[in-house]
Amino acid sequence: MDYSYAPGRNHLFVPGPVNIPEQVTRAMNRNNEDYRSPAVPAMTKTLLEDVKKIFKTTIGTPFMFPTTGTGAWESALTNTLSPGDRTVSFLLGQFSLLWIDQQQRLKFNVDVVESEWGQGANLEILASKLAADTDHTIKAVCIVHNETATGVTNNLAAVRDILDHYKHPALFLVDGVSSICALDFRMDEWGIDVALTGSQKALSLPTGMGIVCASPKALEASKTAKSVRVFFDWNDYLKFYKIGTYWPYTPSIQLLYGLRAALDLIFEEGLDNVIARHTRLAKATRLAVEAWGLKNCTQKEEWFSDTVTAVVVPPYIDSAEIVRRGWKRYNLSLGLGLNKVAGKVFRIGHLGNLNELQLLGCLAGVEMILKDVGYPVKLGIGVAAASAFLQNTIPMIPSRI
Amino acid sequence: MDYSYAPGRNHLFVPGPVNIPEQVTRAMNRNNEDYRSPAVPAMTKTLLEDVKKIFKTTIGTPFMFPTTGTGAWESALTNTLSPGDRTVSFLLGQFSLLWIDQQQRLKFNVDVVESEWGQGANLEILASKLAADTDHTIKAVCIVHNETATGVTNNLAAVRDILDHYKHPALFLVDGVSSICALDFRMDEWGIDVALTGSQKALSLPTGMGIVCASPKALEASKTAKSVRVFFDWNDYLKFYKIGTYWPYTPSIQLLYGLRAALDLIFEEGLDNVIARHTRLAKATRLAVEAWGLKNCTQKEEWFSDTVTAVVVPPYIDSAEIVRRGWKRYNLSLGLGLNKVAGKVFRIGHLGNLNELQLLGCLAGVEMILKDVGYPVKLGIGVAAASAFLQNTIPMIPSRI
Amino acid sequence: MDYSYAPGRNHLFVPGPVNIPEQVTRAMNRNNEDYRSPAVPAMTKTLLEDVKKIFKTTIGTPFMFPTTGTGAWESALTNTLSPGDRTVSFLLGQFSLLWIDQQQRLKFNVDVVESEWGQGANLEILASKLAADTDHTIKAVCIVHNETATGVTNNLAAVRDILDHYKHPALFLVDGVSSICALDFRMDEWGIDVALTGSQKALSLPTGMGIVCASPKALEASKTAKSVRVFFDWNDYLKFYKIGTYWPYTPSIQLLYGLRAALDLIFEEGLDNVIARHTRLAKATRLAVEAWGLKNCTQKEEWFSDTVTAVVVPPYIDSAEIVRRGWKRYNLSLGLGLNKVAGKVFRIGHLGNLNELQLLGCLAGVEMILKDVGYPVKLGIGVAAASAFLQNTIPMIPSRI
Amino acid sequence: MDYSYAPGRNHLFVPGPVNIPEQVTRAMNRNNEDYRSPAVPAMTKTLLEDVKKIFKTTIGTPFMFPTTGTGAWESALTNTLSPGDRTVSFLLGQFSLLWIDQQQRLKFNVDVVESEWGQGANLEILASKLAADTDHTIKAVCIVHNETATGVTNNLAAVRDILDHYKHPALFLVDGVSSICALDFRMDEWGIDVALTGSQKALSLPTGMGIVCASPKALEASKTAKSVRVFFDWNDYLKFYKIGTYWPYTPSIQLLYGLRAALDLIFEEGLDNVIARHTRLAKATRLAVEAWGLKNCTQKEEWFSDTVTAVVVPPYIDSAEIVRRGWKRYNLSLGLGLNKVAGKVFRIGHLGNLNELQLLGCLAGVEMILKDVGYPVKLGIGVAAASAFLQNTIPMIPSRI
Repeated sequence: MDYSYAPGRNHLFVPGPVNIPEQVTRAMNRNNEDYRSPAVPAMTKTLLEDVKKIFKTTIGTPFMFPTTGTGAWESALTNTLSPGDRTVSFLLGQFSLLWIDQQQRLKFNVDVVESEWGQGANLEILASKLAADTDHTIKAVCIVHNETATGVTNNLAAVRDILDHYKHPALFLVDGVSSICALDFRMDEWGIDVALTGSQKALSLPTGMGIVCASPKALEASKTAKSVRVFFDWNDYLKFYKIGTYWPYTPSIQLLYGLRAALDLIFEEGLDNVIARHTRLAKATRLAVEAWGLKNCTQKEEWFSDTVTAVVVPPYIDSAEIVRRGWKRYNLSLGLGLNKVAGKVFRIGHLGNLNELQLLGCLAGVEMILKDVGYPVKLGIGVAAASAFLQNTIPMIPSRI
Repeated sequence: MDYSYAPGRNHLFVPGPVNIPEQVTRAMNRNNEDYRSPAVPAMTKTLLEDVKKIFKTTIGTPFMFPTTGTGAWESALTNTLSPGDRTVSFLLGQFSLLWIDQQQRLKFNVDVVESEWGQGANLEILASKLAADTDHTIKAVCIVHNETATGVTNNLAAVRDILDHYKHPALFLVDGVSSICALDFRMDEWGIDVALTGSQKALSLPTGMGIVCASPKALEASKTAKSVRVFFDWNDYLKFYKIGTYWPYTPSIQLLYGLRAALDLIFEEGLDNVIARHTRLAKATRLAVEAWGLKNCTQKEEWFSDTVTAVVVPPYIDSAEIVRRGWKRYNLSLGLGLNKVAGKVFRIGHLGNLNELQLLGCLAGVEMILKDVGYPVKLGIGVAAASAFLQNTIPMIPSRI
Repeated sequence: MDYSYAPGRNHLFVPGPVNIPEQVTRAMNRNNEDYRSPAVPAMTKTLLEDVKKIFKTTIGTPFMFPTTGTGAWESALTNTLSPGDRTVSFLLGQFSLLWIDQQQRLKFNVDVVESEWGQGANLEILASKLAADTDHTIKAVCIVHNETATGVTNNLAAVRDILDHYKHPALFLVDGVSSICALDFRMDEWGIDVALTGSQKALSLPTGMGIVCASPKALEASKTAKSVRVFFDWNDYLKFYKIGTYWPYTPSIQLLYGLRAALDLIFEEGLDNVIARHTRLAKATRLAVEAWGLKNCTQKEEWFSDTVTAVVVPPYIDSAEIVRRGWKRYNLSLGLGLNKVAGKVFRIGHLGNLNELQLLGCLAGVEMILKDVGYPVKLGIGVAAASAFLQNTIPMIPSRI
Repeated sequence: MDYSYAPGRNHLFVPGPVNIPEQVTRAMNRNNEDYRSPAVPAMTKTLLEDVKKIFKTTIGTPFMFPTTGTGAWESALTNTLSPGDRTVSFLLGQFSLLWIDQQQRLKFNVDVVESEWGQGANLEILASKLAADTDHTIKAVCIVHNETATGVTNNLAAVRDILDHYKHPALFLVDGVSSICALDFRMDEWGIDVALTGSQKALSLPTGMGIVCASPKALEASKTAKSVRVFFDWNDYLKFYKIGTYWPYTPSIQLLYGLRAALDLIFEEGLDNVIARHTRLAKATRLAVEAWGLKNCTQKEEWFSDTVTAVVVPPYIDSAEIVRRGWKRYNLSLGLGLNKVAGKVFRIGHLGNLNELQLLGCLAGVEMILKDVGYPVKLGIGVAAASAFLQNTIPMIPSRI
């Protein structure tokens, strides 16, 4: 009856889409509604207010596009920039690569700052470019907060400091797809002009909503940006915000209710606790990787990602075989190595609505797979390392004390 | 617990989003999955094959974008045309207006052929334009098959005949948002180059999937079309079709399973039976409107839409009050009059997974509302007219005979 | 894919099981839980408190059995009576018949007071029996509040008055299966000793919970009742109530959450408004029946049921054919005539989470069916009669004003 | 919003209710239906046929009661026995104790054969009793196949051998609540007369269906059995089986569809593979327990249960604290020690729709809890032992090879 049925739960540890909590699945289990009724704008209004909290912004304006992260990127760029505009953009993995490709295809003049895959954005080069750019030809600095392909998190506060240091007016555009709601993210404090995420990542919803949040400066830029845009145009949304109907075209009713439930869960846990949970799960994962004698693809601790860990396998092992085996034998979904690191790394996503025992089940599975593919791991050693840390750090569940 | 709760079912009769059948809701009630596992491409492959059937095409190539109808429009245009290209586009209601607005903002040279709202596309003007265009400056003819705002269905076969008559090579781009899966639609036979629809219309899914289908000629055009596009670019999809992974970015797993269920229901009923059901429900609606002594906004029978009926109210009544009252008293959702016909018409959507008794409940509700707002209707008269027709024409349910 | 698929919603108008509101379906859409965790007793405690409100009791003790109405009957009887005990029990239709059959098989000495089907309980005979019973051999008066087979509602206040008049100590046991949460029901005021209902009736849940509520006098009787019982024994529940874990065996977690949602909806609407809605829908139904020229199986207005209407068909028509045709042509589920009235009546259930336009759709369907089977009805006439009444009486939806 | 919310999945490892697979949740996500329509009997018919397969019977007659295991017990007993009948019944834990209590309250003359908790049924005593019972005063031998409280599985084939050896005609009644669909169970081969299970156990459904299966001999016995019964009476069912409508009272539509899905999953995996999976998970659990240096409550290997493991804790630890801590800190639900073993054992349920990585997550959790409560366990050691076994034995997933 199901051409890929396997007993028990699928263990979903790709770095997105992530597990949807039952509360969200329930909230979305509904018929369509007329989005022009008074109910939908009323709900939308509170969602727009609440969504700002996950960006840590009070001055930003959010847009909830029926699209994916790729569309959210496009919205961020086309609303703030004009063809030919110079952007500085950091290339450090598959997703930053794709964003740069998009920037180029959207006809911007992309000044690519490349790092070795596994390293973070080279901010020294950014500094030198900004220093040299006294004419302010750089219109935007584009950075992926968390490069999902390599498990590298960039230091956004440092980017802001450099911009400030050179008093450079460039817009600060941030892909927060695999960071927002999971890593520390402070849109206002860090002076981010456009931040964006996708529903299927740390928000733990189905795919289909790209949330873009614009600073007042970004909104101002949108008035003169010449990039052609219609579907992704903020201005259409702003018009409907003013009227109070909110939607220039049909939203997914189900995703709106799902977002309501997802935000309620995040607020109930507390955003800071959510972030602390991600820190904890990530640390546990890295301890297991270390115990297995494997290397983290991320080269320095300062860049370690708390939402995804890319694990480097020895040269005699094909990391794709690890992922395949997870699927075929253990009902475990791991992330493939992409592009330059294909075959060399596999990825463990540890973001979204996830807890420690789920992670430990995954780590136990990875150990068995490693053994399956001929890597001489001592079974249990990674779980032991992760457990030792977790047993000391997991807090009591507040609602159950 | 619910700030707009009312007992019983909501009677959803806007012309989209429409009622989702339980089978589809069930199919979508699921956790996320890794879309890079072998299961998702395998399902996608069969979906792409099956989706062609609702367009009645064997030579077309479908794309299932995580977007809405507005995004599907943008995909149709930007993949086939270049800025400055001349299009002939018919303006006959709010949705054709919005599409024209999009065409203009995408920098095409739009040759607008306007009709009075309530009339169909003026094909004589098309003929004269094509006749005059011996240089083939017209690159595309853009037409909304079914204008949802006025309940007008255009004759696509006639458009094709005119194009053929003048041997004009212009692309034939069709918005089938409120027609495909409900009205007779023959992509191949009518030589349509791009046809598109949205999931929340006759497919009876949630919003979030825009399906665009391209003829070989349209695919050819996409190779030279200069419009800037990334998210909506067919070429990215085609690359992944070739590799067999199908998705350049993350699809909604839930919508894929939902589409599978929706297509299964359509095929079980039989597409021709689905269309016949729409014809039947529409005819019944028009008979009720006539019995109420009200006018159809659509001025001639040849344009009558079988998916939505726009009903003209007398000048002393505000049609928006009818819609409001449906919501506030009867848990009935009717369509507002939009733009030029705001306050003058209300709309009854009768598309998607809907049956006769649901429609009769709606018509009974409309009668009571009409009385509420001071229109001197004899209660029951519209239902009687509709029933008289339906009782003669409803077929037995094949699975239950 | 579905061996009885038909497009659109099923129109469910049997007098139970009834339509489940989406809010309840959602609440039940969940995994199992450990019912011994602190969460389940906490929820159970509030449910037991709230469930008393639908019985209008403050002194009663409710029991939520994982069973059906038949099991609830058995629980009511076996906990309060001993084999050989004399009961007075009214026979007026299929469900009172079945209850009497159960009483006999449970070895009670049942004093049956029979009425013609279509009439209410003969309370004069009750009075005479009580008058004669100076020895108090009658241990219980058993009455079905609303006989679902014939659409007859008995006057419980009158029963209490008679009992009081004769100062008779007999227990007063009431089947409220198709009345509680729909008809006026006052357990304390009417001195009812055991009242019971089933989840799939006016509570609008799935089948599977039989709720039995016992007065202090009934609890007292349970201490000496000699009927053999285990599964249905109140005492096991009372023991666990005391401990605070509430469940002597495993409850359905899903039904508990469903009940929570169902009660929330009822309280949001207001129990009195729920009852008024049932009165309104029933009156509308009876007006339609009258307009069709058909007779109500219920012979006097004082017995008219506000949850189900049994409609008598002319002798030349088989009412079972009406029900079959509803199913096979209109996706309409009507109630069969049972036992003595098989072939002679069909039943329209109008209870639970239902609104006026749903009912009018059903009535329109019945008209067409009547015509199908050769009854000379003027289509629309019943809907007109119902609408005329409803249009004057439907209140605005409070949450939407 | 949820008074016991915790992030991530609940790890449900009580020995029932167990995890419901998504396929079953989906199948149950539906409105009520008229159970008197032709669709429900058609489905019931195939369910009754298919349900026999999980009992491994071709000659048995199954009954699907809307009840729990406790009700299924009552049905088994009251349909086959008369008050005063002598039964031999084995007491070896909380559930056999409760069944015996029920037998006594139902007025049977129960000949209790008690074992120490942690031991299996004493079959030698059974043999001697049967040997002595030349008058055949023993009417039934009642045995719990798998005592959930202590994790003891009894040898049913041996019971049959003893009965055969003495040519004793006693009925052989078996509680298979925590065994059927998980342990090897052969109703026909072992000459079982009544076998029963509950939906929330290895079938992985919600609570609410008690399935009882009767041999021809049991059916014969039901004709003369004098125990009072109505709700649980097989005869009512048999009458409706004959008519072809199947239900003497309202079934839960949702559970029927759920059972359909559950059986489909079991048949897709293959019942023997399902049983092998349980054997594998149980063995892994016991290896972990051993590695932790803890004792299995089950005293001999021949009695080891493959659906639940009761773990004995050292005297200085309160096992209830382990369960509490699982709930309060790790979102892990373990089984309490009950009655005689309260405080002394905690239980790990490993039955139903469950896979290896889920179990390993649980075992990792137990290790941390053990450390939390002061037991000197080396973290990872149990997981290592379990993994070493599992990595050698887990088969590839057939649908994914």
